[in-house]
Amino acid sequence: MLKTIEWTDQGVVILDQLQLPAREVYHTCTRYEEVADAIRRMVIRGAPAIGVAAAMGIALGVRDSAARDLPALEQEFNRILEVMAKTRPTAVNLFWAIERMRQVFRRTAAGGVDAVRRALVEEARRVYAEDLAQCAAIAQHGAVLIPACAQVLTHCNAGALAAAGGYGTALGVIRSAVEQGKQVQVLATETRPYLQGARLTAWELHHDRIPTTLITDNMVGHFMKTGKIDCVVVGADRIAANGDTANKIGTYTIAVLAREHGVPFYVAAPFSSIDLSLPSGEQIPIEERSPDEVTQIGGVRIAPADVPARHPAFDITPARLISAIITERGIARPPYEHSLKALAETPVPTAS
Amino acid sequence: MLKTIEWTDQGVVILDQLQLPAREVYHTCTRYEEVADAIRRMVIRGAPAIGVAAAMGIALGVRDSAARDLPALEQEFNRILEVMAKTRPTAVNLFWAIERMRQVFRRTAAGGVDAVRRALVEEARRVYAEDLAQCAAIAQHGAVLIPACAQVLTHCNAGALAAAGGYGTALGVIRSAVEQGKQVQVLATETRPYLQGARLTAWELHHDRIPTTLITDNMVGHFMKTGKIDCVVVGADRIAANGDTANKIGTYTIAVLAREHGVPFYVAAPFSSIDLSLPSGEQIPIEERSPDEVTQIGGVRIAPADVPARHPAFDITPARLISAIITERGIARPPYEHSLKALAETPVPTAS
Repeated sequence: MLKTIEWTDQGVVILDQLQLPAREVYHTCTRYEEVADAIRRMVIRGAPAIGVAAAMGIALGVRDSAARDLPALEQEFNRILEVMAKTRPTAVNLFWAIERMRQVFRRTAAGGVDAVRRALVEEARRVYAEDLAQCAAIAQHGAVLIPACAQVLTHCNAGALAAAGGYGTALGVIRSAVEQGKQVQVLATETRPYLQGARLTAWELHHDRIPTTLITDNMVGHFMKTGKIDCVVVGADRIAANGDTANKIGTYTIAVLAREHGVPFYVAAPFSSIDLSLPSGEQIPIEERSPDEVTQIGGVRIAPADVPARHPAFDITPARLISAIITERGIARPPYEHSLKALAETPVPTAS
Repeated sequence: MLKTIEWTDQGVVILDQLQLPAREVYHTCTRYEEVADAIRRMVIRGAPAIGVAAAMGIALGVRDSAARDLPALEQEFNRILEVMAKTRPTAVNLFWAIERMRQVFRRTAAGGVDAVRRALVEEARRVYAEDLAQCAAIAQHGAVLIPACAQVLTHCNAGALAAAGGYGTALGVIRSAVEQGKQVQVLATETRPYLQGARLTAWELHHDRIPTTLITDNMVGHFMKTGKIDCVVVGADRIAANGDTANKIGTYTIAVLAREHGVPFYVAAPFSSIDLSLPSGEQIPIEERSPDEVTQIGGVRIAPADVPARHPAFDITPARLISAIITERGIARPPYEHSLKALAETPVPTAS
């Protein structure tokens, strides 16, 4: 099984996604700042993976803190949370993981510093195991939506590399359909500017021998019009209570095209990506990253010097364009205000 | 004035667009095969420029032919036309230029080899001069469609670099609007896989000090939804009698988005790009180029080895998504079956 991130006694081991597909390099982060830096620089990315990395980073920082008493540890803990919270703004899993660790701290504080340390490490490992289990459940729920013989379009990377490992979210749905014997071909958009589709999705699916063809982002309309796409499955960085979904830049464009061509458009994400506190997508902050990532590819400048560029890393797909949201608790259909709330009240599958 | 291509006594001088924006290099092609190769390898590209290059290449081949009598010259002439016709399939300007040269040959054959040689060289220079004049007329006609204060989206490069030089088609419309004192900002898509937007449009507009911001192709939906785009102007590689338009891959996606957001979508092209012999876009051949252009950027591999890719170089935008077609003879509005035919019957502006 592909492992994106792993907790070890030596530290948090992270597969360096900036070096894929050319090299498969693992870094062992021994300080929480290194984990935060890995999130910020997109060494590890993808909303579920960011949540797992944040939990592990926090656990690492607390485990190795020199603090001897609870007030000192709490002070350090808060500093760690602050550093983590500033890494990336859009994926809600980051804030979800931070909040979860904060609650464990509160719950176990009475037991003293060692109890807190132990509990936070345990919690980080639990977040990891739950992520794997949730992705497996998403995969199973979603597979029924894939036709027996289908060409599926996916954007960016919502695979094992975007999660703790294993199935992943959108690619998990595809993997599960393939395991069920369905004939699935994948059309993967390269996903400029960061090329997660070309570098990560193509690598992951090729690794699993799932037939995958790479296209540039601007070819989606052409392939939809010529009837080559049966459905779209993408991941999510944050889903509002009404179903509006923040995901990698370009997702909204694909959703508009899917509606125009009557192609079902599915979002696959764990409940930790759903932010029921936000009524709609308008409240989701969109990260604006460096324009250098647009004007340069692999360190090589592709545009004239001094030409400005924009780089919103995400866009918002309105709920009306989403055919279904696939979660570990089941499939939500419109209207999402009701279906997401109903699923939120169903029991959570626990990590086994 | 920017010159994309020029006829000189030494040969056909071509600005090497593969080296832009890093280097401004001019090649002098002394044999027609070099001109054909420059078209094939996209050293020169853009439908109007391809037409001019083909005419000049044919003139060069005939001028320097060793043939001493008319049958020998005609044999060589036909060989030259064949080589030119095989360079690129989509831009109709190529076939239009070939046909035009063929007619000149027929018309002047009675005068003997020297008369034919002279006439073909004159015709190539006329094609060049007419292209400049047509682009200036397109620019003037189209400028009225640009609001007084506007952000205009363009795709690929339909500028001076896509024509003989000077105004260009879509960028000519923008240039002319700026000359009229309108406040125009340009949003240029980078245009994967060949990056004509990042490399050529950004370079050209920056050169003319027209404010230009570069975005990746997949950001168009986001910027339309957030209200940042007032209109779209693109070029064309071939326009069918009903207005269906073949243009750089990604154009169709932008047209769907423009319709979704109520943004006017304009096509700017000379009449030599209009193929009244084709009833609709379905009959336009779409060039499929090497997948290496998708899996590599600037010679650097971005996807894992052995992952297949697709590379249709163009797509077809149906006429129903096009608000107007701007030509040197005026602006055509839907239904294009009628408006294009009516414009076809109006007099042609001649090169002065």
